[in-house]
Amino acid sequence: MHTILRSRTGVEVIIGPDQPFVMIGERINPTGRKALAAEMLAGDYGRVKADALAQVEAGATVLDVNAGLGVANANELEPEVMVRAIEAVQSVVDAPLSVDSSVVAALRAGLQAAGGKPLVNSVTGEAERMEAVFPLIAEYRVAVIAMCNDETGISMDPKVRFGVAKKIVARAESFGIPRENILIDPLVMPAGAVRGSGAMVLDIVRWVREELGCNTVCGASNVSFGLPNREAINANFLAMLIGAGMTSAITNPLKQELKTAILAADMLMGHDEDCMRWLRYQRQLARAAAAAAAAASGEATATDERAARRAARRESRTSEG
Amino acid sequence: MHTILRSRTGVEVIIGPDQPFVMIGERINPTGRKALAAEMLAGDYGRVKADALAQVEAGATVLDVNAGLGVANANELEPEVMVRAIEAVQSVVDAPLSVDSSVVAALRAGLQAAGGKPLVNSVTGEAERMEAVFPLIAEYRVAVIAMCNDETGISMDPKVRFGVAKKIVARAESFGIPRENILIDPLVMPAGAVRGSGAMVLDIVRWVREELGCNTVCGASNVSFGLPNREAINANFLAMLIGAGMTSAITNPLKQELKTAILAADMLMGHDEDCMRWLRYQRQLARAAAAAAAAASGEATATDERAARRAARRESRTSEG
Repeated sequence: MHTILRSRTGVEVIIGPDQPFVMIGERINPTGRKALAAEMLAGDYGRVKADALAQVEAGATVLDVNAGLGVANANELEPEVMVRAIEAVQSVVDAPLSVDSSVVAALRAGLQAAGGKPLVNSVTGEAERMEAVFPLIAEYRVAVIAMCNDETGISMDPKVRFGVAKKIVARAESFGIPRENILIDPLVMPAGAVRGSGAMVLDIVRWVREELGCNTVCGASNVSFGLPNREAINANFLAMLIGAGMTSAITNPLKQELKTAILAADMLMGHDEDCMRWLRYQRQLARAAAAAAAAASGEATATDERAARRAARRESRTSEG
Repeated sequence: MHTILRSRTGVEVIIGPDQPFVMIGERINPTGRKALAAEMLAGDYGRVKADALAQVEAGATVLDVNAGLGVANANELEPEVMVRAIEAVQSVVDAPLSVDSSVVAALRAGLQAAGGKPLVNSVTGEAERMEAVFPLIAEYRVAVIAMCNDETGISMDPKVRFGVAKKIVARAESFGIPRENILIDPLVMPAGAVRGSGAMVLDIVRWVREELGCNTVCGASNVSFGLPNREAINANFLAMLIGAGMTSAITNPLKQELKTAILAADMLMGHDEDCMRWLRYQRQLARAAAAAAAAASGEATATDERAARRAARRESRTSEG
């Protein structure tokens, strides 16, 4: 089953078990980023544009846009800020977007501004939320992230969470929303607090794939909350998720360990023809390391420059374009 | 299902889907290590002992012992060399062994020397090999690694490889060998040559677990043959394998990325109570990094030494023993 997203101009991203893992860039989110929130509030979208460019450059093919500023009148401001943020992103990159808000009016404004076929982040199994969000999803014929919690909270029993996923899919279908437009998020709990939380997610991903056929998404980094060396935990967890059939994640493509894990796992799953993405990324890393070493030694010789030009020519010949 | 191995003195290692992943140390193997082969041929087992100690120190709980010297009369020499190597290992560590040879006389000599309940590495689905190895496995009541190839070679169809696993288990049972004493090796092919070779192994691991109930093992590093940054590929593959239910691997515990992947995956699967092994390993790495930095700066101050002593005391209090 393929979930197809589209940018305003028609650039398509396909999410599916036979496709490369889709990285949804998480950086355009003022939650916990005070400087970004202050800039957006002041109408300065320079950092939003820079984050959009950097994430696409690093391999994100979809960009999450969140406009929750965390101020007293945030809900009133959010639709307008969402539109401004989306316009800023679209002024520098041409990628499908994930419109991320708990405020339904901001989702609607974002969908209108985004155009194409964005992703909505998110709906839950709560009746009130489904009744508010599904009419929008049906009207705009877009895709939506479905989180496996409901009025009873987040269950520590993976079977209960899978039950919530089934309930959401059934309710969505009653609105005429096809299941290829639903990405199930099994919800990732911190492994330091919930023993075996990783295994629960792997089980839910397999059940979703086998019984519902839906594609899946998550924010993997919550798994390492409170533990040392979070990036190593998150990276290995992403590899395990891809091995179990997870098809996308909201993540930070600028983190080298995460990107390495995703590209290695994609290759091992057979989603990297002739290992070209892996080989190109390793060359990039090698060039960056060589450049850093040269800068550190302060001895960029003519030989180094010739080598760099040769490497750049090789790269341009093998680039995907 | 639990596969129980025992050292000569009774130290037990349990392999199973509800247990921490078992690292079988691969280093005591003269294949491709010319210096080691020359020393063993000359009767010098110093490096064998050092490798045994280092691997156990790094977290291997079972040690593979291979005595194939790659010389003209290797087969004649091998039983005697195997016995000497096992005695050398047992003189410094007390861990169950994996007796690794293609020469049946060397397996028999190794089993006699090892005592306890070692693992035999390995049998295949070839009729001749099964008829030669299974009587030994039954007589000594030990465990065996079963590789999923037979007279037809190694199939690129994972269903055929799984069929070989089923054939081996059935034939073993006719010798009175219970399936808890069989570790299935799905065979790992290079991802650079066989597209999706990783996904094939994940499928076979799941089928073996669901349909046969047997535990599994592999030599993961073959997956990265011919590709750059092999350790990152191998590490992410190990995490994916553990996520799919693989229970052990023949690997090098001295490689930091591999050990990190195994400990992270164990924790995420719920096989690391209170994340204690992860926390302890991160402290070890931090101490090693601090010591390296101190050595590099050449400024080991009294303050550093006091901090190191405090860290050592904390470590000893939280050690598994």
